[in-house]
Amino acid sequence: MNKLELPVLNHSDDSFALHTDKYQINMAQVYWKNGDHNRKAVFEVYFRKLPFQNGYAIFAGLERVIRYLYDFRFTDSDVDYLRDEGYSEEYLDYLRTIRFTGTVRSMKEGELVFANEAIMRIEAPLVEAQLCETAILNIINYQTLVATKASRIKQVAVEDNCMEFGTRRAQEMDAAIWGTRAAHLAGFEATSNVRAGKLFGIPISGTHAHSMVQAYRDEYKAFKAYAETHKDCIFLVDTYDTLRSGVPIAIKVAKEFGDRINFKGIRLDSGDLAYLSKEARKMLDEAGFSNAKIYASNDLDEHTIMNLKTQGAKIDVWGVGTKLITAYDQPALGAVYKLISIEDENGEMVDTIKISSNPEKISTPGRKRVFRIMNKANGKSEGDYIALEQEEPQNEQRLHMFHPVHTYIAKFITQFEAKELHYTIFENGNLVYDLPSLGEIRGFVQENLDVLWDEYKRTLNPAEYPVNLSQACWNNKMRLIEEVRNKVQEALEA
Amino acid sequence: MNKLELPVLNHSDDSFALHTDKYQINMAQVYWKNGDHNRKAVFEVYFRKLPFQNGYAIFAGLERVIRYLYDFRFTDSDVDYLRDEGYSEEYLDYLRTIRFTGTVRSMKEGELVFANEAIMRIEAPLVEAQLCETAILNIINYQTLVATKASRIKQVAVEDNCMEFGTRRAQEMDAAIWGTRAAHLAGFEATSNVRAGKLFGIPISGTHAHSMVQAYRDEYKAFKAYAETHKDCIFLVDTYDTLRSGVPIAIKVAKEFGDRINFKGIRLDSGDLAYLSKEARKMLDEAGFSNAKIYASNDLDEHTIMNLKTQGAKIDVWGVGTKLITAYDQPALGAVYKLISIEDENGEMVDTIKISSNPEKISTPGRKRVFRIMNKANGKSEGDYIALEQEEPQNEQRLHMFHPVHTYIAKFITQFEAKELHYTIFENGNLVYDLPSLGEIRGFVQENLDVLWDEYKRTLNPAEYPVNLSQACWNNKMRLIEEVRNKVQEALEA
Repeated sequence: MNKLELPVLNHSDDSFALHTDKYQINMAQVYWKNGDHNRKAVFEVYFRKLPFQNGYAIFAGLERVIRYLYDFRFTDSDVDYLRDEGYSEEYLDYLRTIRFTGTVRSMKEGELVFANEAIMRIEAPLVEAQLCETAILNIINYQTLVATKASRIKQVAVEDNCMEFGTRRAQEMDAAIWGTRAAHLAGFEATSNVRAGKLFGIPISGTHAHSMVQAYRDEYKAFKAYAETHKDCIFLVDTYDTLRSGVPIAIKVAKEFGDRINFKGIRLDSGDLAYLSKEARKMLDEAGFSNAKIYASNDLDEHTIMNLKTQGAKIDVWGVGTKLITAYDQPALGAVYKLISIEDENGEMVDTIKISSNPEKISTPGRKRVFRIMNKANGKSEGDYIALEQEEPQNEQRLHMFHPVHTYIAKFITQFEAKELHYTIFENGNLVYDLPSLGEIRGFVQENLDVLWDEYKRTLNPAEYPVNLSQACWNNKMRLIEEVRNKVQEALEA
Repeated sequence: MNKLELPVLNHSDDSFALHTDKYQINMAQVYWKNGDHNRKAVFEVYFRKLPFQNGYAIFAGLERVIRYLYDFRFTDSDVDYLRDEGYSEEYLDYLRTIRFTGTVRSMKEGELVFANEAIMRIEAPLVEAQLCETAILNIINYQTLVATKASRIKQVAVEDNCMEFGTRRAQEMDAAIWGTRAAHLAGFEATSNVRAGKLFGIPISGTHAHSMVQAYRDEYKAFKAYAETHKDCIFLVDTYDTLRSGVPIAIKVAKEFGDRINFKGIRLDSGDLAYLSKEARKMLDEAGFSNAKIYASNDLDEHTIMNLKTQGAKIDVWGVGTKLITAYDQPALGAVYKLISIEDENGEMVDTIKISSNPEKISTPGRKRVFRIMNKANGKSEGDYIALEQEEPQNEQRLHMFHPVHTYIAKFITQFEAKELHYTIFENGNLVYDLPSLGEIRGFVQENLDVLWDEYKRTLNPAEYPVNLSQACWNNKMRLIEEVRNKVQEALEA
């Protein structure tokens, strides 16, 4: 039989510049043709609703966004494709010249982020800022979602180790590796994905599968074969019959090998985990293996883990797969990318707004900064405060914090520190941000959670963390809404 | 400001060989150390439950699995990483030599697949078959899920065009492009993702976003700018006020430009789509644009589309994003990879089973073939029939088809054709399958759906399509269950 050749999929110069929606390419053409492509535009990335009804989200995805912007360019094969799609040679020549030359201010990965505040702000020539929208959202939406889900699970698992085991159920290959990075960043201890270990330095974890027991058609033979090859041994005990076969044979092999192995414990992957773990614990303890741990997996998430703990399950380590890596109960975060300010025909920056019949969908215009208001008395955060660029809330004696929709919900803060949440990542296209290690990001997450009141951290019905607008910012928004309403009315009457 | 260098993420020789669970690497070591690595093993890929309570699934993912197996090898940087993780030099030398040398039989992409029947069968030296499990599942689970979701949506949209618009909400970048390929394969007409257009030749679609209207701070200016640059025009009309501003201005511009543009229609992206589309339709018709189409998007799926149609919404083209690309209502398919037969110490193939207290989780042992039983009288499929490798159901006069769990549910078929569903993809490591074009796969999906009774195709409460075992296959399974039970009992008494 002849070996067939596989048709080429990726061109050697493949890039992510075309990883965007077609309308971006079309709009870019409009701007370029009209000479508007270099007008300075300011976009913000934010979501309108916290995922999983959680009290906070954990921002993840910055590193990949940086790599994407750093490498941004249309390659020959990109241009060839667009030519086939009918774009003009002049426009393609222009696209070839595009690099990302903008300024990006962003929260750091691992920052706690809430609804309706900018995670990231992109200021760039209109065309550049527009072309990179889709990929930025694609990256941030997913990674932030999984980091947040992982954090919820850690809130419940508390001191227990959590392992990310979901590669086979992830939504394709990128999700598996970037998802497990997001989970690790948010507190998970290890991953089963070896490539994620290689790329990101995440500790990797895993022993053997049911298929090994099946291959030897005998648990005793299989466990022995494993013990002869690996010092650290965790035996998977549910291939045939957990309590009648798996656990007793694991104990038998552990006794036979004695100090020649490090019997770390057993893994349960099916059945009634509460019952089986309690029984297995007794059997292990009676056999003198009270240090051996019980690892469990099988469609776990924060709800099942909390339930199992309530039932007194004797599980030490949680392997979490599908429900985490796909963010099963809410598989998409709705972060959006909205134009908040643009250079007009006269070179003046003017603020812009997107109106909606749904009040939550109205964007907040203008270049803004986001501050976390730290109460000096107890070191806890009082809420976030969004001010216009030129404002300095730190200089206020008495900060007026009020709900941006239900404005009667208000408080005054006096002894506070206003901690700015955005850092400069790119400045006029230059990368000026030194990427932290994943370990540093993990530490940063923990610091951030420490200053958050517990009431925002519980997994069920958390309190609503305040995200307020300064008076000036709020007034600016109201002014723009009024302006648009008048314009629509005028058009109607014309 | 100095430009910082980005730390290296991927080594130039990065491969997907490590895109696997750590336990695979550990088991491979056990097999290799024990000289069992070349024992021939047979694994099957199948799922136990159809997604979305749909009546069928559409298999997708074969092309990427082929590319993965074709390229399989541990590169220098892979081996370096494993060395750092403590694996021995001898083992690493062995890993370096591994290529995929097995035989793969698989359904073609676009085949209809049901629960508990093999999508794919991998026969290979034990180590090879084991190492590739995780990536194969990662690919097939996601792509099959999205193809199935897309097909549900097409069942409801019927003749209306459907566009995949979900990149920004997809679970990372691979999901965006392979997900949109799966959607296209299953019937979606176009995608917004330009890179997917480049890689797969999928038609791309898109015009402009709200941000373009915001950039010109005026719908009239914005639509005119677009019309001056693009022949085909679809105007997004909901930036400020759909009926009072967006639609009238779209009509005004279309009239002004006349034949200079091809006014294809308007797009609604928010608000009450039923009401707005009906009102907009009237306005377009009254203005003489009865050929202009109404495009709609905004969290659509098969449920909202069916509802909108019931309400008489005047929508011609559906843009579907989040709900499709993440398979929102069931974001994971649970396909598994189970050992069904293995070469024993004496070189004999023996069948293997995985027992579970949950009857649906018991695997069906032995090398098998899957047939679709076509009724010659009406050309429709009567169900699928799983037989042991050597059986030839086509030669039966009267085929006994019975439910594998509730065996009293049975029927006899006489005038039938038994169509085998698996094709050889790799033979002893050689690719022997000529990949069909995406267009061919789309046609194949349609042919397959045509022979399926409508009762299996409805989106709510479809009838259960029969997936039966031959008597010999069923007997073999019962024999193995008995064997395992006896073994556990013996071990207990020992």
